[in-house]
Amino acid sequence: MAEESMTGRDDEQVVNPWEVTAKDGGKIDYDKLIEKFGCQRLEESLVQRVERLTGRPAHVFLRRGVFFAHRDFNEILDVYERGEKFFLYTGRGPSSEALHLGHLVPFMFTKYLQDAFKVPLVIQLTDDEKCMWKNLTVEESKRLARENAKDIIACGFDITRTFIFSDFSYVGGAFYENMVKVAKCVTFNKVVGIFGFTNEDHIGKISFPPVQAVPSFPSSFPHIFSGKDNLRCLIPCAIDQDPYFRMTRDVAPRIGYQKPALIESSFFPALQGETGKMSASDPNSAIYVTDSSKDIKNKVNKYAFSGGQDSIENHRKYGANLEVDIPVKYLSFFLEDDAKLDHIKKEYGAGRMLTGEVKKCLIEVLSEMVERHCKARALVTDEVVDAFMAVRPLPYMFS
Amino acid sequence: MAEESMTGRDDEQVVNPWEVTAKDGGKIDYDKLIEKFGCQRLEESLVQRVERLTGRPAHVFLRRGVFFAHRDFNEILDVYERGEKFFLYTGRGPSSEALHLGHLVPFMFTKYLQDAFKVPLVIQLTDDEKCMWKNLTVEESKRLARENAKDIIACGFDITRTFIFSDFSYVGGAFYENMVKVAKCVTFNKVVGIFGFTNEDHIGKISFPPVQAVPSFPSSFPHIFSGKDNLRCLIPCAIDQDPYFRMTRDVAPRIGYQKPALIESSFFPALQGETGKMSASDPNSAIYVTDSSKDIKNKVNKYAFSGGQDSIENHRKYGANLEVDIPVKYLSFFLEDDAKLDHIKKEYGAGRMLTGEVKKCLIEVLSEMVERHCKARALVTDEVVDAFMAVRPLPYMFS
Repeated sequence: MAEESMTGRDDEQVVNPWEVTAKDGGKIDYDKLIEKFGCQRLEESLVQRVERLTGRPAHVFLRRGVFFAHRDFNEILDVYERGEKFFLYTGRGPSSEALHLGHLVPFMFTKYLQDAFKVPLVIQLTDDEKCMWKNLTVEESKRLARENAKDIIACGFDITRTFIFSDFSYVGGAFYENMVKVAKCVTFNKVVGIFGFTNEDHIGKISFPPVQAVPSFPSSFPHIFSGKDNLRCLIPCAIDQDPYFRMTRDVAPRIGYQKPALIESSFFPALQGETGKMSASDPNSAIYVTDSSKDIKNKVNKYAFSGGQDSIENHRKYGANLEVDIPVKYLSFFLEDDAKLDHIKKEYGAGRMLTGEVKKCLIEVLSEMVERHCKARALVTDEVVDAFMAVRPLPYMFS
Repeated sequence: MAEESMTGRDDEQVVNPWEVTAKDGGKIDYDKLIEKFGCQRLEESLVQRVERLTGRPAHVFLRRGVFFAHRDFNEILDVYERGEKFFLYTGRGPSSEALHLGHLVPFMFTKYLQDAFKVPLVIQLTDDEKCMWKNLTVEESKRLARENAKDIIACGFDITRTFIFSDFSYVGGAFYENMVKVAKCVTFNKVVGIFGFTNEDHIGKISFPPVQAVPSFPSSFPHIFSGKDNLRCLIPCAIDQDPYFRMTRDVAPRIGYQKPALIESSFFPALQGETGKMSASDPNSAIYVTDSSKDIKNKVNKYAFSGGQDSIENHRKYGANLEVDIPVKYLSFFLEDDAKLDHIKKEYGAGRMLTGEVKKCLIEVLSEMVERHCKARALVTDEVVDAFMAVRPLPYMFS
């Protein structure tokens, strides 16, 4: 792949781990992204194979194409079909106190994968990354990592199969050895090509990619995977993280390791419309897990971009434009009932249902979801966090 | 200081941590190096102050100008005079099985400083660095680090005041937090200026300078220096390591830390003559601590560059050129008896003593020294290495 294309820049469309911007304020062109990044589209046949192998319906995010791209996911399914195992790796950069709904997407999906395949999971909290990119202090980054861990745990992960770690607490030993092995294989020119770093960037940024790369390798976790050096790894993540793992997959065979497989999602859109990711810096662009039902109602009613027409007459006549309608988009993420969603899309698209009714449904779905999350999070004490983050073997991880 | 000059390149003279080459095969110009690096000459008055403060004669390496440059060493003496404490930091890149005499110089001197000032010491073994620069495997680098630790311990360090660590075993926690803090303050352009890295260098090299920087800060060793964040650090090293600590001193105040002080040596010359450092790749350029008395005798007689004249007649007439004579140079490092050394220089310089006699004296001195080292090293068991490398408090470090 040409170096230039690897940054994900295509005139105006920019997608990399730190920036997601569509062309001319339009929508992200995911087809173009797949082509540029060189990953594969997640075809319907793969979704059906997942259902067949796991004996359960595919997650909404699979059925409705939220996770739309992959790298070698088919090989992971081959491995599973042969009765072998794999492990999951996902993570989060803890840059803010409260998570928004977009942040939950990879964790909700990862929990489904863990439950469906009964496999171990490592979750990396890149507090070092956020300390360097967001100019947070070490202490503040570490504090946010623990706070975010509580929200992640509240998604329902199985403690017998899950190891959560922050880089500031876990980098060292076998993990650091793998960082050095990866770093030896990647030139400065290469990270410039992949991540768009410049000569004025500090060496902390330039040093970071191996930190996110090495959780892909079982030998980075000797307390969990000792003697299982060939265990395959599947990484569920948003597609903006692809550059890290393109680099990782390039390096892996050179240091005698398996390439990680990926399953990649599109971005959860902002309330204002589908031009990129939600922004943590604009509180009105997102629903947070800390928002009250009243907050949710106000935000959805006030900010959620509607595809409905500007008058009731026109709406009845032309119907809503579902392609740009945020309430429908959000419902397609979080309303599990396929029949109900189809009904809304049909009625709303035909102009028989009004924006207000759709928003009312969305407010109900989100309020219920956020309330459930808050209840689960309230149960996550510091002791529970310590238990998930303890460096320990996971003897029942494949049971 | 201009970026260009910071690499230590001046037409032909090159001095940086990985290359030491004199101009036109001549001698290293140390005056020029002091001027370029911006460190200070270690004046006779400072040596006298050391004797006064410690109540013992200065080490041969101080009296004879082997350690010839410094940065803020006077401030360390101020601290000591006020009854406060400091700590020592030195290290080694473990790239070879056996050490040569040049490798012992900083450790012999550091042992003297530890004994004279009664202060704690941390010794860093940069196995990660050698893995990256010398293309050794992680395992081989770690093995060499332990082997080298045995030779270092054989120099006689006080286990109640000394912590030896290898990067592969110790990087993490507070040490890694400091690495990130340093890395945030140093741009790629800056390390290009200081170390001469290029865009084709791998990011492991670019990531490494903070690893060597942070042992300068007490907070990198919470098990030893907890609550002593302002403890000053003195680094005895050869002057080719100056770039690392120039960078460290530049960063320290920006992250709220004290600048480390330095006391810097010239290079121990090769047997063939004083054009740079000994080379680990040419076994005949150096005396190794594993050489037998017979090896030493052969190497000195066959390879030690002589300043004597080409015939006995001329020698008696003109005398030896002491400036280029390696046996005299080596004796000035290792013959402690000032009167005897003066006698040799006088008689040899006047042509009354012949090269053979001087070499005989050197062979005696080196054989005795290497034999003593081997005996001491034989006592260093794996348990002793483990004890020095244990992450532990040092409750008697200032007693």
